[in-house]
Amino acid sequence: MKKILLLFMLSVCTATLFAQNKAVPAKGFAKMSATGNFQAYDFQRHAVGDDEILIDIQYAGICHSDLHTAKGEWGAIDYPIVPGHEIAGRVSQVGKNVTKFKVGDFAGVGCMVNSCGTCEYCKKGEEQYCLKGNVGTYASKDYFHNDELTQGGYSNKIVLAENFAIKIPKNADMKKVAPLLCAGVTTYSPIVHKNVKAGDTIAVAGFGGLGHMAVQYAVKLGAKVTVFDITEDKRADALKMGAVKYVNVKDPAQLKGLDNTYRVIISTIPAKYDLTMYQKMLKLDGDLVILGFPAQKDLPSMTSGDILFGGRRKISGSLIGGIKETQEMLDYSVANNIYPQVEVIPATASAIDQAYTNVLDGKVRYRYVIDMQTIK
Amino acid sequence: MKKILLLFMLSVCTATLFAQNKAVPAKGFAKMSATGNFQAYDFQRHAVGDDEILIDIQYAGICHSDLHTAKGEWGAIDYPIVPGHEIAGRVSQVGKNVTKFKVGDFAGVGCMVNSCGTCEYCKKGEEQYCLKGNVGTYASKDYFHNDELTQGGYSNKIVLAENFAIKIPKNADMKKVAPLLCAGVTTYSPIVHKNVKAGDTIAVAGFGGLGHMAVQYAVKLGAKVTVFDITEDKRADALKMGAVKYVNVKDPAQLKGLDNTYRVIISTIPAKYDLTMYQKMLKLDGDLVILGFPAQKDLPSMTSGDILFGGRRKISGSLIGGIKETQEMLDYSVANNIYPQVEVIPATASAIDQAYTNVLDGKVRYRYVIDMQTIK
Repeated sequence: MKKILLLFMLSVCTATLFAQNKAVPAKGFAKMSATGNFQAYDFQRHAVGDDEILIDIQYAGICHSDLHTAKGEWGAIDYPIVPGHEIAGRVSQVGKNVTKFKVGDFAGVGCMVNSCGTCEYCKKGEEQYCLKGNVGTYASKDYFHNDELTQGGYSNKIVLAENFAIKIPKNADMKKVAPLLCAGVTTYSPIVHKNVKAGDTIAVAGFGGLGHMAVQYAVKLGAKVTVFDITEDKRADALKMGAVKYVNVKDPAQLKGLDNTYRVIISTIPAKYDLTMYQKMLKLDGDLVILGFPAQKDLPSMTSGDILFGGRRKISGSLIGGIKETQEMLDYSVANNIYPQVEVIPATASAIDQAYTNVLDGKVRYRYVIDMQTIK
Repeated sequence: MKKILLLFMLSVCTATLFAQNKAVPAKGFAKMSATGNFQAYDFQRHAVGDDEILIDIQYAGICHSDLHTAKGEWGAIDYPIVPGHEIAGRVSQVGKNVTKFKVGDFAGVGCMVNSCGTCEYCKKGEEQYCLKGNVGTYASKDYFHNDELTQGGYSNKIVLAENFAIKIPKNADMKKVAPLLCAGVTTYSPIVHKNVKAGDTIAVAGFGGLGHMAVQYAVKLGAKVTVFDITEDKRADALKMGAVKYVNVKDPAQLKGLDNTYRVIISTIPAKYDLTMYQKMLKLDGDLVILGFPAQKDLPSMTSGDILFGGRRKISGSLIGGIKETQEMLDYSVANNIYPQVEVIPATASAIDQAYTNVLDGKVRYRYVIDMQTIK
């Protein structure tokens, strides 16, 4: 009898264990090759670990880098790929050690789902600069899960370590929150690090998904912001968002007299352009911060001579932000009503394909967000 | 009688005026074309103006940039050219408004002999970044003197505005002072601006005329300095000057494990090299400062992608230093016995030609200085 009881208990425990450790069925949209269109794609998320949460995704933003990555323009990748690293949703399951979230909470995911946790940058909360390399939200090998290929937010569910999920305030506008997790923090971080403040003369080059966020943060901080883009079509929007000047780079007359003008220039340009033109527009000791990453063939370059004769004008990049900083950005954005201008599209392969085409054609105003709740 | 007296007085005044405003005969060594050797060259300096001084040049340093400029490698120039922007000597005449110097004082000249004086950078004492462009010590159009072509320090006399001459302390080692005016301030300035301090881990890439000065300043400030060069021959000198490590870049084994190591890297490399290799050796938020300027064909370059993925690792140049900073550097150097290691050569065309050959062949240890007092 004791033996039977023991076996029964064992089997209950095992069943519970299995239930907890069960892979999570997910559905989404994937590209099967660099050139193909999106297709409906059923796949499995790994089981929710003790320190992990499951998020039912409500909204997923479409970032320009999704396009480059999915098309293999930033290097060969494995297919199928489910892009998406601007994710907002609701927690539907938590592992037994989770303390940051409970079921029903709103949660977001940005560009990382994990990192080594032990290097000097992870310890400082700068996981985006993890020396081992963080685990990207998609198209990345998850070294905490047998190198499984991560899949992103164009799907209905995602499982990740609670430490890498961001708490979304209850009063947030959920459909607009998703893009903050990448476009928001990517622009917020350098603006904060370069100490942009009231009265500063700064510039934002490229007025798209990233650019229109940079303008809002800088304007909110009291800076006098000039926007550079290659079309007249965005002038009204830029001025409406608080820019004091809009320069259409295609008109040489508008570029005159701008050398030695800006303390900080944030370049979000995703296409070929003239780096030294912007370097020259910096004041001495100013910073040109590169955020945009064109396809390899279009990457602008500078010689060491350009850099030398720029004197103390500094050039650097900036990669998203750490988890702590992302939380800070999200809280700040919601509290100050700073959101992307979004266009919500339904969760269908054809809608995503069309959105990609529009992004490439410069027609997006300013971020597409997929309503993942409409997935069939 | 009155008329005669008046005429006499007028003629005396005119004679005095002419004496004061008389062009100054000078002799030196010039290149007559991009490819030719140096030749003895007699020419005239403009007359000593009211705010100007005449310096009898004792020593003139040979800077690597003299070679590039004289050979037209940095762009076409007018010939004859008398190079030399590392000048130390003694004041032999002063204009009537001069207050900073008196006859007999020791004085030095660096890379500039004037600047607009009215732009925002000149007003701040950053004349090297003059928005109009400063007047270079040689091969430059002097817009205060009818665009006459300036001629440098490989000569026995120079006339310049007192504001652009540096006071040399009496106890200075005159034959070693000259190179401080370019190599000294060019390395001192970024080291001060990047706040190099005790305990910092920094690197100096290229151990030549500039590099061996950078090492001395950084070591004096208490930094742990690594030196990079392409030869074993300089290892002993670098360690003797206080470097804690010497890396021979030609040996791949010595380059291993150095990524993410240095807070500041000063690159003085005057030849082709890999910029991104040094960028990667920076710690996050570190600074790569470019001082060396190879010939156009050898200039290394970086793409915006290299810059972006370097994250917050900054890259900039730095151009000499302002006059105030140059004076500060000279006083600091003399007080702390920081001098270049020099080899004094006689003032003959053949000695200068030979020195150029040795500089090109990497044989100089570490700065040639021409003893202009020996000119025939």
